[in-house]
Amino acid sequence: MTQNNMDTTVPLNSDALAELVTQMFSQQMPFNQLLGLKIKKLGSDEVEIKLPWDDKLMGNPIHKILHGGVTAAILDTVGGLMAILYAIKDLGEISVDEFQRTLPNVGTIDMRVDYLRPGRGKEFIATAQVIRKGKKVAVCRMELHNETGTHIAFGTGTYMIG
Amino acid sequence: MTQNNMDTTVPLNSDALAELVTQMFSQQMPFNQLLGLKIKKLGSDEVEIKLPWDDKLMGNPIHKILHGGVTAAILDTVGGLMAILYAIKDLGEISVDEFQRTLPNVGTIDMRVDYLRPGRGKEFIATAQVIRKGKKVAVCRMELHNETGTHIAFGTGTYMIG
Amino acid sequence: MTQNNMDTTVPLNSDALAELVTQMFSQQMPFNQLLGLKIKKLGSDEVEIKLPWDDKLMGNPIHKILHGGVTAAILDTVGGLMAILYAIKDLGEISVDEFQRTLPNVGTIDMRVDYLRPGRGKEFIATAQVIRKGKKVAVCRMELHNETGTHIAFGTGTYMIG
Amino acid sequence: MTQNNMDTTVPLNSDALAELVTQMFSQQMPFNQLLGLKIKKLGSDEVEIKLPWDDKLMGNPIHKILHGGVTAAILDTVGGLMAILYAIKDLGEISVDEFQRTLPNVGTIDMRVDYLRPGRGKEFIATAQVIRKGKKVAVCRMELHNETGTHIAFGTGTYMIG
Repeated sequence: MTQNNMDTTVPLNSDALAELVTQMFSQQMPFNQLLGLKIKKLGSDEVEIKLPWDDKLMGNPIHKILHGGVTAAILDTVGGLMAILYAIKDLGEISVDEFQRTLPNVGTIDMRVDYLRPGRGKEFIATAQVIRKGKKVAVCRMELHNETGTHIAFGTGTYMIG
Repeated sequence: MTQNNMDTTVPLNSDALAELVTQMFSQQMPFNQLLGLKIKKLGSDEVEIKLPWDDKLMGNPIHKILHGGVTAAILDTVGGLMAILYAIKDLGEISVDEFQRTLPNVGTIDMRVDYLRPGRGKEFIATAQVIRKGKKVAVCRMELHNETGTHIAFGTGTYMIG
Repeated sequence: MTQNNMDTTVPLNSDALAELVTQMFSQQMPFNQLLGLKIKKLGSDEVEIKLPWDDKLMGNPIHKILHGGVTAAILDTVGGLMAILYAIKDLGEISVDEFQRTLPNVGTIDMRVDYLRPGRGKEFIATAQVIRKGKKVAVCRMELHNETGTHIAFGTGTYMIG
Repeated sequence: MTQNNMDTTVPLNSDALAELVTQMFSQQMPFNQLLGLKIKKLGSDEVEIKLPWDDKLMGNPIHKILHGGVTAAILDTVGGLMAILYAIKDLGEISVDEFQRTLPNVGTIDMRVDYLRPGRGKEFIATAQVIRKGKKVAVCRMELHNETGTHIAFGTGTYMIG
């Protein structure tokens, strides 16, 4: 998650670190780029992922709907990012090097996806909120809507964060 | 799911229809092809999906592990295919046209994924079994292993099948 | 679910049937009575279950909190009742006898419970809403709070309704 | 979880502590006693909970089946006990007092129950196995059968253990 010319030993405040992690999700995770995820931190507590429709993301081409695996992938991503950003708020000043040492412990433990309606739309928007937060584990609820506000799926994810 | 020169009004027995549906999952679902899924029906009751490692499927590139969304996608796919194949066994002779009319009712209702170990390997193998079967709903348990037998994830999916 | 002197062959409108089913959950399900559930239909679309604290419902007595199984039981009950009431709205006039013939097909397919905070309180309040509705399957989200509004648990349940 | 005349400051080996925790689940958790759970440690890695049929545990009395909440409660209990026993194996010698200080951090994070068949039988048997183990979190799979071997439900639970 380093960037060119960046000193990774300098302590960063939580806002700067959160911004950096969001960029990492956006630019350095190959599968997020393959899907075409557009990841944006809206505030210290809010993150949003947009996914433009692309034919390559279809399941059954007859009905032109999103593959269920794409829905699961975007929900897992937005929940995981939200969980990490939430954890970062408690870290205080920390360097990128120190932060990266905690990353091997970060990951999804389990996730449930509820598919509510067929994944039709020109663009899909995923959001997340933390519903349980501990030192080691966070639980998030996620939602996927399309650009007209149709609610396509819910997710619930349990993440290891420390 | 039609093929060139195929008469879609001729009744097929369940084995022929199952073979055709497996081919549809394999060759006519764009996202399955984007992932690189190799889908194979092993018997009337058994299906297996293999996925060779590809750098584009990574989440965090530092640790070179599968993105959690890929794991979810392959588990959803193997569970959904298994659920449909199970439903087909009860259909008797049915033409492709008739079968396709039931497809809009087919889909994942909900799925849980349990991530057990980091998704490392040269190849990943997903399998599924039906644990509850009704006229309208089937529930499957799915597993993902790598080529050395390391167990990477469990899935549990509830599918609408009729 | 019959009551004394009731003619179970007379068609009832959906409101009357919903009221009857709510009474059945409340008065004729032994385990609901063992727990002490107080079940109330608030409107055509709304149901609420209250559970007063009772020492017999504790898990670990050192911390005086609700056993996780009680939380699961009340969430499953409120979700299942909500799913049935939702299904009833589509039935039109139907007699109790006819309705009872559909009951063997009614039941929980799967449920997830997310435990957010320890189950402490003098009274617990469970609510539910339908998030996916089909002819055969409904999915509900449930919540459990205590009397001061503390959010104790979320539930998500998939129910067979026809 | 103390017993009469017991010195709670003496270090115990993991077998003795596991036995003590099993007794606590069995004799000092009021809701487990209300249900009638018979809890038994079979080996260092194996636990079994039996539940004799009792009319008070019924949901719908017409069909004489176990309330779904009872199924959830017994699965949560066997999974939680299994998770704690697994954690104890790594603790080394520890006194009851020290162990009790870790208990507030122990509990269910989330659980999924899959209801496979109606809960009919004279006795129900719940078992569990650990499928993911970390320092802080364990994930278990649980099963419920009746006395004739009919498989009634699966559970999957994520537990905080440290």
